Amino acid sequence: MDKFFIFSTIGIAVIAFVFAFWLYIWVSKQPSSNKKVASIGELIRNGANVFLRKEYLVLAKFSGVIAILIFIFLPEPIWKGKILENLTMFIAYLFGTGLSALAGKIGIQVATIANVKTAEAAQKGIKPSFLSGFRGGAVMGMAVVGASLLGVALVFLITKNGTALLGFSFGASSLALFAKAGGGIFTKTADISADLVGKVEFGIPEDDPRNPAVIADNVGDNVGDVAGMGADLFDSNVASLAAALVMAVALGGVEGKNVMMVFCFAAIGLLASLIGVGFARMGKTGNPTHALNMSTYITTGIFTVLTALATLLFKFEWRIWIASVVGLFVGVIIGITTDYFTNDERKPVRNVAKASKSGPAFTIINGISYGFLSVLPAIVGIAISALVAYKIAAPLGVTPEDQTQFGMFGISMAAVGMLSIVGMIISNDAYGPIVDNARGLVEMGNLGETALEITDSLDSAGNTVKAVTKGFSIGAAGLTVIALLGAFMSEVNVKAAEIGHALITGFDVMDPVVFFGLLVGSAVPAVFSALLMLGVNRNAERMVGEIHRQFQEIPGLLEGKDGVSPEYDKCIAIATTGALRELIPAGLFAIVITILVGFVGGVAAVGGFLVGNIVSGLLLALFMSNSGGLWDNGKKYVEAGNFGGKGSPAHKAAVVGDTVGDPFKDTAGPSINTQITVVSLLASLLSTIFLTLSIF
Amino acid sequence: MDKFFIFSTIGIAVIAFVFAFWLYIWVSKQPSSNKKVASIGELIRNGANVFLRKEYLVLAKFSGVIAILIFIFLPEPIWKGKILENLTMFIAYLFGTGLSALAGKIGIQVATIANVKTAEAAQKGIKPSFLSGFRGGAVMGMAVVGASLLGVALVFLITKNGTALLGFSFGASSLALFAKAGGGIFTKTADISADLVGKVEFGIPEDDPRNPAVIADNVGDNVGDVAGMGADLFDSNVASLAAALVMAVALGGVEGKNVMMVFCFAAIGLLASLIGVGFARMGKTGNPTHALNMSTYITTGIFTVLTALATLLFKFEWRIWIASVVGLFVGVIIGITTDYFTNDERKPVRNVAKASKSGPAFTIINGISYGFLSVLPAIVGIAISALVAYKIAAPLGVTPEDQTQFGMFGISMAAVGMLSIVGMIISNDAYGPIVDNARGLVEMGNLGETALEITDSLDSAGNTVKAVTKGFSIGAAGLTVIALLGAFMSEVNVKAAEIGHALITGFDVMDPVVFFGLLVGSAVPAVFSALLMLGVNRNAERMVGEIHRQFQEIPGLLEGKDGVSPEYDKCIAIATTGALRELIPAGLFAIVITILVGFVGGVAAVGGFLVGNIVSGLLLALFMSNSGGLWDNGKKYVEAGNFGGKGSPAHKAAVVGDTVGDPFKDTAGPSINTQITVVSLLASLLSTIFLTLSIF
Repeated sequence: MDKFFIFSTIGIAVIAFVFAFWLYIWVSKQPSSNKKVASIGELIRNGANVFLRKEYLVLAKFSGVIAILIFIFLPEPIWKGKILENLTMFIAYLFGTGLSALAGKIGIQVATIANVKTAEAAQKGIKPSFLSGFRGGAVMGMAVVGASLLGVALVFLITKNGTALLGFSFGASSLALFAKAGGGIFTKTADISADLVGKVEFGIPEDDPRNPAVIADNVGDNVGDVAGMGADLFDSNVASLAAALVMAVALGGVEGKNVMMVFCFAAIGLLASLIGVGFARMGKTGNPTHALNMSTYITTGIFTVLTALATLLFKFEWRIWIASVVGLFVGVIIGITTDYFTNDERKPVRNVAKASKSGPAFTIINGISYGFLSVLPAIVGIAISALVAYKIAAPLGVTPEDQTQFGMFGISMAAVGMLSIVGMIISNDAYGPIVDNARGLVEMGNLGETALEITDSLDSAGNTVKAVTKGFSIGAAGLTVIALLGAFMSEVNVKAAEIGHALITGFDVMDPVVFFGLLVGSAVPAVFSALLMLGVNRNAERMVGEIHRQFQEIPGLLEGKDGVSPEYDKCIAIATTGALRELIPAGLFAIVITILVGFVGGVAAVGGFLVGNIVSGLLLALFMSNSGGLWDNGKKYVEAGNFGGKGSPAHKAAVVGDTVGDPFKDTAGPSINTQITVVSLLASLLSTIFLTLSIF
Repeated sequence: MDKFFIFSTIGIAVIAFVFAFWLYIWVSKQPSSNKKVASIGELIRNGANVFLRKEYLVLAKFSGVIAILIFIFLPEPIWKGKILENLTMFIAYLFGTGLSALAGKIGIQVATIANVKTAEAAQKGIKPSFLSGFRGGAVMGMAVVGASLLGVALVFLITKNGTALLGFSFGASSLALFAKAGGGIFTKTADISADLVGKVEFGIPEDDPRNPAVIADNVGDNVGDVAGMGADLFDSNVASLAAALVMAVALGGVEGKNVMMVFCFAAIGLLASLIGVGFARMGKTGNPTHALNMSTYITTGIFTVLTALATLLFKFEWRIWIASVVGLFVGVIIGITTDYFTNDERKPVRNVAKASKSGPAFTIINGISYGFLSVLPAIVGIAISALVAYKIAAPLGVTPEDQTQFGMFGISMAAVGMLSIVGMIISNDAYGPIVDNARGLVEMGNLGETALEITDSLDSAGNTVKAVTKGFSIGAAGLTVIALLGAFMSEVNVKAAEIGHALITGFDVMDPVVFFGLLVGSAVPAVFSALLMLGVNRNAERMVGEIHRQFQEIPGLLEGKDGVSPEYDKCIAIATTGALRELIPAGLFAIVITILVGFVGGVAAVGGFLVGNIVSGLLLALFMSNSGGLWDNGKKYVEAGNFGGKGSPAHKAAVVGDTVGDPFKDTAGPSINTQITVVSLLASLLSTIFLTLSIF
């Protein structure tokens, strides 16, 4: 039975690919006839592909350098003579980056077709339009999860080695770090500049084709929210599986029951998402939010029941099953509490909208305050689920060391449980930018008022659901990085035993070296976010200059004269070049400071560093994502006619909030997850070096 | 020799009081003749005293309840029969609150006289005006440090007991928590409302007597920046001494050399500040910033030399001397790097001012980004100084346990070193609101353009120096709370030994209970800040309504008709009532969640909780203080004629930044220090209870 689960996982991953392909064909076959929409769609597709090509070129060089360094130094310096192991790491790393890039590419491919189909379908009604958008997103969901399961299963099957898995995961993360940061900078550069000059300065509507940045804005939705987010969740999913497998191997060897359980639960998660996606459609209510949430709950239910059956059938440990289910349910609860802070039917959004009457300073102070408040339920939720998962799983061990290992395995399985429905989450998440794009296409292609209303309501559902899925992803990332901390200690001890170093039993904060690492680690997410946001700022300044130039130099553009169109490609080029230039310092900073701390304080400092990084990263990611979502919906609430409606002083203030929130929620906030994962994996990979070379 | 140092400390504290009294008389004797200035000064003094009286009344009730609880439960429940110990704690606690309140009261007393004198002296020139302002601030500096040394020495002399000292310190902190939060809410309520209606809406200048909130604004400077800050630094100073003494006692008993060293260094610090204050005057350059910084550097030098002499003479450990001096110098370095981010001659402030040209959203995004960046040097500085102080001191121990104790003692002496010049710091800090008030009095009393220019330049020096002193205080608070963590462990183990519980050797983050506490603790400063800022918001809304009412209902007020004056007292009443209502939830939240975590996870969870609290508290305090200072100076830089100057769109945007920064830097940011200290002390006091009663 030993390989049964690995092959089943591969089998289900293949089914997911087939299903994704079927969905892709289905979306492609949807009718499209409007030439204007088609030509704008073409512009968006080309822009996205140009960015992706340039970005991947930069990242290929970067990954190449890292890959060579890995080949030379990891898992041990090549002159130690184990060339085959180094080659394995080298290939695993490149395989991780390649699959991650592929996931992004597939997402862009389908999203830039689905947007056109969704726009055209909106002329026929909300149901077909919803289905085009959702199934487009689902291609991404199935492909990403299929790729991550396939990758993990193959690497494990071939290498039978936890460290190689971490190398694979590091490949996925390091690419995701830059893809998420680069895409995030691109999308917000375009979004902010388009709004600032278009809406605020010249008073022309959103998605107006006269605006030179409008295509860049739509491209941004795809490269930031689709490709970036895909790489991000690919990375979280791979990391959670890698962490669980490293500990499962430590607890019972590569053919032990715990390894089987990890694969079994991951496969069931994908299967549940597959069924959930298959059944997602709008019922008689015609409410897209309801349809999206319903399919998430269905998936959760299926996962719970099927894993219980599997536990019964294959005699897995019930305690571990409980840990997974706790993770999943806490994830859902975190999503719901996040929703409280970003839903326009609740107090926080309404208070922020109301405060906007007194001016933008109050919009900001209120938004930041509620953003700070919003971290409490999520952080307490993560804290409780980690504690419960650990305490439930620990008694499976006999010796105290075993109990610690089982406890950490419990946490990693809680993360696997939380991420089990990630296929569904990605589908819902990718739905957002597709319908957002579709709305733009309806506006630019003049498809009529009804179609605009339909895409508006689809878009608004996307925003609401996004809050839930974002809370979910941050929660999952939180548990994953806690599990990676366990993986780091496992790895350190494997190495320590090999080289005859004393075993590490934990990271005591009363040890000043650990505390030193903890403090430094806590500053990293703040600095990382700052570098990204300053990048967006600098880049937006350049693009605003370009938009001004076009309005001044192209006669008839502002007046909307027939046959005059802006030079969309120049704005796309600025966003592209700027994003690629600005993403490197932030990413390098996170990597270099980890290595520095390791050389100063060794594994003890790195352990502290990871903890500081996790704690402050979670805090800032939750704060930034939630306050960003809050401001976005606050603005929409004012636009719906409250506190003076569009054009009122309250609206102007709310727009300021929304603009501040843009880089919060779409650039910095979601990139922090990836930053933490990369640093955690890097620490595990370099543990031998830190064990032997350090000042303190 | 055993009591020599304690009595010397008491002696120097008495000298400080005498010196403070002499300064007070000197300030009072400065000439004042202008009746209008005198009457406005009277209004401010009365307003401040009314607030203080009401606040102290509320706090007296609150402290009364806490004192009774302490009498019943601490150090052990009263039915255990050691009534005398409980009575000692009860008295120590009340003595702490009383001295803290007294320090605030003295500050208000002199500041509300010095403001008038400074305003009048400005008619004669910058030098006498500077001296009035500075010596007024110095009264506060000498009184606060004198009171803290006197209090600590007396409590120690009488009780010979570290736990009683923690009780005394907890009294100081719990009062400071509410005084800082209440004063912070008061001052920013008034400041924001006055600006919003006066400057932004009606375009009347700052400090214009027509504005109904203008007196409340000036009262706010006194109750927030003078009384609140005094209570805050009183609390930090007492806490650092208490932490050092608890560990010194653990290392060599109440009459050991380490105890002597703590008192000796603290006394020398006060002496150095005394000399520094005495010599502070403006040289021929006529540059107030230079004069303020110079006296700080002189104090630092004197402390270094005298403590070296004392170490030589009394054969103290040189390693501990190095730890103190490292603390002091790192404090100065942190101050200087903080200055980089808030000085208008540096890139961050200029970039934020420049970004304001593109609108308020960019002011905010840039300010937040630089605020995030600014945490790095300070946090790394604290991390390095803690690590170095520990590593330098640890070899003094023989057994590993001893080494840990000596290491933590080293950290606490670094904090004592950093805080040794706190007398100077408070003098500089209190100078700020005095000259700010003086500027208002010059404007309202029509003392002429030259006097206005002089007070403007004094005010601007106050702002610049404030950045340095704030960085310093946060650094000192950081080291103090790390030292308190050591005190917490000491206390826990004293109790553990008594009740036969296993000794606590540290807090391992791989223990899920510690990690649980860590996560929850990290959320606390965010929630605490949010509650305070929302309080400011709600309160400002009420006051804005009142200002509008007065402008509408009082005929001739807006036009400035002779003999018509606004109802200043109504605004003061709103600020007072609101501040007292809003400060309770935030303070209670911090206290209650500490107790909850203790009952859930026992001392392990509380240890983690304190660490999470320290890490995220430092991060947020630095971020909020620095970005607030940055926006303030950004606005001033625009007002100086850059990027369009006053009235330009860039100025409007910069004002939004400044308004957002107000509650950041004057309400939430500086209150976080106190929040962390209170929670740390509370944890130490309740350690017996947490040891015996907890779920996990």
